[in-house]
Amino acid sequence: MNTQPNYIGGLDIGGTKVTAIVADGDRPLARITAPTCKTGEIRALPEQTLAMLRTVCEQAGLDLSALDRVGVSSAGPFACIDGKLGLATPNICGARSRSDDLPNDWDIIPLEAVLREQFPHVVIENDCVAALSAERSFGAVQDEPDCVYVTWSTGVGFGLCVDGHILHGKNGNAGHAGHMLLSDHSDAVCGCGNRGDLEGLISGRNIGKRLQRPAPEIFLAARNGDPAAHAEALEAARWFGRGLYNVAVTLDTSVFVLGGSVWQHHGDWLAPIVQREIESRLPALTQDVSVISAALGSLVADIGALSLVMPPEWVAPWRNTRPWESLKV
Amino acid sequence: MNTQPNYIGGLDIGGTKVTAIVADGDRPLARITAPTCKTGEIRALPEQTLAMLRTVCEQAGLDLSALDRVGVSSAGPFACIDGKLGLATPNICGARSRSDDLPNDWDIIPLEAVLREQFPHVVIENDCVAALSAERSFGAVQDEPDCVYVTWSTGVGFGLCVDGHILHGKNGNAGHAGHMLLSDHSDAVCGCGNRGDLEGLISGRNIGKRLQRPAPEIFLAARNGDPAAHAEALEAARWFGRGLYNVAVTLDTSVFVLGGSVWQHHGDWLAPIVQREIESRLPALTQDVSVISAALGSLVADIGALSLVMPPEWVAPWRNTRPWESLKV
Repeated sequence: MNTQPNYIGGLDIGGTKVTAIVADGDRPLARITAPTCKTGEIRALPEQTLAMLRTVCEQAGLDLSALDRVGVSSAGPFACIDGKLGLATPNICGARSRSDDLPNDWDIIPLEAVLREQFPHVVIENDCVAALSAERSFGAVQDEPDCVYVTWSTGVGFGLCVDGHILHGKNGNAGHAGHMLLSDHSDAVCGCGNRGDLEGLISGRNIGKRLQRPAPEIFLAARNGDPAAHAEALEAARWFGRGLYNVAVTLDTSVFVLGGSVWQHHGDWLAPIVQREIESRLPALTQDVSVISAALGSLVADIGALSLVMPPEWVAPWRNTRPWESLKV
Repeated sequence: MNTQPNYIGGLDIGGTKVTAIVADGDRPLARITAPTCKTGEIRALPEQTLAMLRTVCEQAGLDLSALDRVGVSSAGPFACIDGKLGLATPNICGARSRSDDLPNDWDIIPLEAVLREQFPHVVIENDCVAALSAERSFGAVQDEPDCVYVTWSTGVGFGLCVDGHILHGKNGNAGHAGHMLLSDHSDAVCGCGNRGDLEGLISGRNIGKRLQRPAPEIFLAARNGDPAAHAEALEAARWFGRGLYNVAVTLDTSVFVLGGSVWQHHGDWLAPIVQREIESRLPALTQDVSVISAALGSLVADIGALSLVMPPEWVAPWRNTRPWESLKV
């Protein structure tokens, strides 16, 4: 660990946009967002993030060299090149995509290598792992040692914490439990090619594709009593609960903290179904497992990125003043 | 952590027998085994383990007070009473059993509480977690940070290690992934009541029950080309591989180290099927996952128990001299 920093940087890298943020011990100082760069040389996206960090530093009246540590929340999966993490993300890397709509032939984007040319201290985590870090630092599961963040949205992703350690895995890909196989009977196909995995069964993208109707519409119709949509949503909630059950018996989890657009809008009425699926099996492990909603909403990625490199001394004052609430997203 | 010990104790508690062992920095000094006590007061089994530790100490020329730390490998699951781990093991605790053949009404055996009356330093782990600790210390995955031990035997159990941390969970029950749901179609019933979980689908106990023939016979017939047995064994290996795949995408595992009687006797010809099930999905995570056999055989529980409390300085000399090999099991 380096000496106590005055400033820290954060990056949120998604398939459609990138956010850069800089903060000091009191609060976020500046934040900008831009469409994710998907053309040019393989270093183009990392170079874009550097340029964006330079811009937010300027907006905060700083030189880029004032930053020595940067936390990154990124869409995965990751792959290793020369011991450093790179992005092998199917909706950014042309060579990893199953469709032909990406204007590049990138295989693995050397994100960590490029960032380390500038910053001595770089932490890159999957977006759900960063979200878990945010919720443990400032959200719904503060300091909880055995908790799991789950997003139920376009896709399904997990961030895992056991015994107070956030799990990273051999290439930073721990938490891809959205691709666990749950059904040997369903013909639900996931974007990854799996048949009957959790994401194939319940993600917004895959439900929408199967019913040829946008997922938000389906869940809204379900809430309003449309019988076919209601049956589909209940079935999805049951699969979701079975997925959480599988994680709970694997990790002996205490709390699930849930986010993502499906849960944000429909967790209120789907929660009892999910809870029942978890509790109805192996009570020695599941009887005290709780299911709660994430607290940080759409700020979770930015705060998550910062939390990955935040000095522990900053956490208590930030918890008191909640300076992220002034950010406009 | 206490000051450097001269002696350490180990206990292996199973449904049929208990083993106690004492060791110094050079080697195991004494070891005894007795049938698991299942009658009397709820403290009877912990008291038995204390008496057995006293006996092995005597055999080694020591007083029980020479031990200040004891590692325990035990059948689970565990439950917490007053912040200490107890055994809620269905084949030991009458109140937890689904059959009527246990001569006690125990619910949770206060193992940690009783051992802590005697020893300042007690570490209790599930038998598969202790086995993983043994294999990481002295076996097939020495110092590997991202590895998983799996036993395929009467039951199916896991010990998990991520980022160099062995996972424990809220009540020490991490690794009960044998009870993950895999099939929504099978009528395979597990001892826990689940339908279609991994253990229900493939454990020796459950396959044997389904085919009304001892599992060792089935696997031997399968190896020898009996068509029905062969189909059953291949199907079981495919389910096993799917279970490992689910764990690999959840934890971003590097190596699976496999033990248990089914694997010990039939891993040679089942391994390619298992490996194929893992590798055939989500290559970004699974392409470099390896599947190897455990190295410590039937000594894994005793060595595992000791490894849980072994001073780090003892590990290198033990690796050199392999003193456990002189133990008769």
